[in-house]
Amino acid sequence: MSQGSVSHTALGPGGEFDRIRAVLKRLGLRAASSGDDCALVTIGDQHLAISTDLAIEGTHFRAGWLRPDEIGWRAGAAALSDLAAVGATPLGVLASVGAQLDWPEEFLADLMEGVGAAAHAVGATVWGGDLVRSERLVIDLMVVGRADVPVLRAGARPSDGLWVTGALGAPHAAVRSWEEGREPDAGARERFAHPVPRVTEAHWLRDSGATAMIDVSDGLVGDAGHLAAASSVKCVIESERVPVHGAADAPHDALVSGEEYELLATLPAGFSTEDATRFEEQFGLALTRVGSVRDGSGVLLLEASHPVDVPAGFRQFD
Amino acid sequence: MSQGSVSHTALGPGGEFDRIRAVLKRLGLRAASSGDDCALVTIGDQHLAISTDLAIEGTHFRAGWLRPDEIGWRAGAAALSDLAAVGATPLGVLASVGAQLDWPEEFLADLMEGVGAAAHAVGATVWGGDLVRSERLVIDLMVVGRADVPVLRAGARPSDGLWVTGALGAPHAAVRSWEEGREPDAGARERFAHPVPRVTEAHWLRDSGATAMIDVSDGLVGDAGHLAAASSVKCVIESERVPVHGAADAPHDALVSGEEYELLATLPAGFSTEDATRFEEQFGLALTRVGSVRDGSGVLLLEASHPVDVPAGFRQFD
Repeated sequence: MSQGSVSHTALGPGGEFDRIRAVLKRLGLRAASSGDDCALVTIGDQHLAISTDLAIEGTHFRAGWLRPDEIGWRAGAAALSDLAAVGATPLGVLASVGAQLDWPEEFLADLMEGVGAAAHAVGATVWGGDLVRSERLVIDLMVVGRADVPVLRAGARPSDGLWVTGALGAPHAAVRSWEEGREPDAGARERFAHPVPRVTEAHWLRDSGATAMIDVSDGLVGDAGHLAAASSVKCVIESERVPVHGAADAPHDALVSGEEYELLATLPAGFSTEDATRFEEQFGLALTRVGSVRDGSGVLLLEASHPVDVPAGFRQFD
Repeated sequence: MSQGSVSHTALGPGGEFDRIRAVLKRLGLRAASSGDDCALVTIGDQHLAISTDLAIEGTHFRAGWLRPDEIGWRAGAAALSDLAAVGATPLGVLASVGAQLDWPEEFLADLMEGVGAAAHAVGATVWGGDLVRSERLVIDLMVVGRADVPVLRAGARPSDGLWVTGALGAPHAAVRSWEEGREPDAGARERFAHPVPRVTEAHWLRDSGATAMIDVSDGLVGDAGHLAAASSVKCVIESERVPVHGAADAPHDALVSGEEYELLATLPAGFSTEDATRFEEQFGLALTRVGSVRDGSGVLLLEASHPVDVPAGFRQFD
């Protein structure tokens, strides 16, 4: 990886994921990494955003990290965050679940109550689903929303500011704790177990002129890379500006922590800190300018105005 | 199981599946066994049918039985058959795939070409998807269709005739061959590998007055049981009338063979064999009256007008 930049193709371990993604793109599919993609389709006069988000035990979570209702909430929130990322209004969820038949009834009831709670929290309904036998727990959620005025990744313009909601780094800290055999800090655990799709926040940003938007699912630097590639611009991130969650282990975790489901948006240069204060007062959530958009490509990471390497440890949990 | 009848709750092995399904129903979800359920939703003035169909290696197919493009076609056809079953017109497909990262590029390309071919065959488009790491191959397809005049399971009336498209039993024979370590008969293999969603056939049946419809995914007797339960009627099946595919091992396989994706429809008593001939001429596919609808509940299986036991070996492959 060259100094101070990360390319769009630096997503998957060993490049294998990109190879597979290339295959799907060759077939004309809008396949993307988990959690940051919607298909935008028009049916009759209805403009819809539709997305699917597949979570598999062992890949996306370990048994024992979370309670069943938390696994359900998290899967629901991750899928619904795809809708938030384009400024869509969630309508419904379909849930496909693969599970062992001898698990207790309560497990599946709790799991689906978590999915339902995440849906209801953003005004959506669970429309139905499918249930099959599987050795490992598999949850695939398909979400449908109304997207009359979608905000895409592709609209960022040089001179826009780069803004992020919330504070980052806690999910990364939670996963690290579990992987090291420790129970995470309560605050970090809560951010991992109960991410919140930023649906109304996304509407506010759209109505305030957001030119591009994405949810932070692969990590701030990684998702800024997606946005830069889609918009054919360079995203400059001033690392000292990045809001670090109180439960994060280290400031640089905020740059790489994935599955945050906060929003990364580009807003016109005229969007001010006073505007951000209005957002914070309305939602009780920080909105922080972390950098800006320039001509070029990729992500430029600055510390005290100097380009620096993308921090080691950049990986997606997925 | 009482003589001559199979209840709606006799679907899953050991009743465990029903227990889980009961849990999901308690949560108000329209969860159902794989492959025979659509959610019907109205968005604006658009009436849509939406369904999801999850297939997992080891549960729904074994590695080595099928080529990757056949696995993709089959998963696509199974999902799209859900739309056909309610008389919907397929519009689009979202594909979630879990796969190992070190599989060859061609595997995923072929798999998705199979999904795409099944979609294109019925006028639908692959809108997008998700791709994640998984030890076992996982394919979850969400399908969306237009359903202005859906045909439900619940509309069957005493005196209706019970009709089925095509000829049954071949997929069961194919699975039995593979499970016994033999390569199936070519005709049986083809029916297993390339089921055809009966979309235009379903429109014809709807326009000819079908009162209820379901696709044969759990086996004729099992799906007649679903239809009977939903319509609060009894389905009488005259076993000697059931069309047996030339590649089936034994006539009774046609009663229990699942994943046929043929249509089981109830049509008014006035629907005649001459009407069925018009269907056969138009589609090159048999349409056979296999019984009738009566007051009561469950399925009554007749041989030479005498009630008989539901054949042993009744199971769903899923």
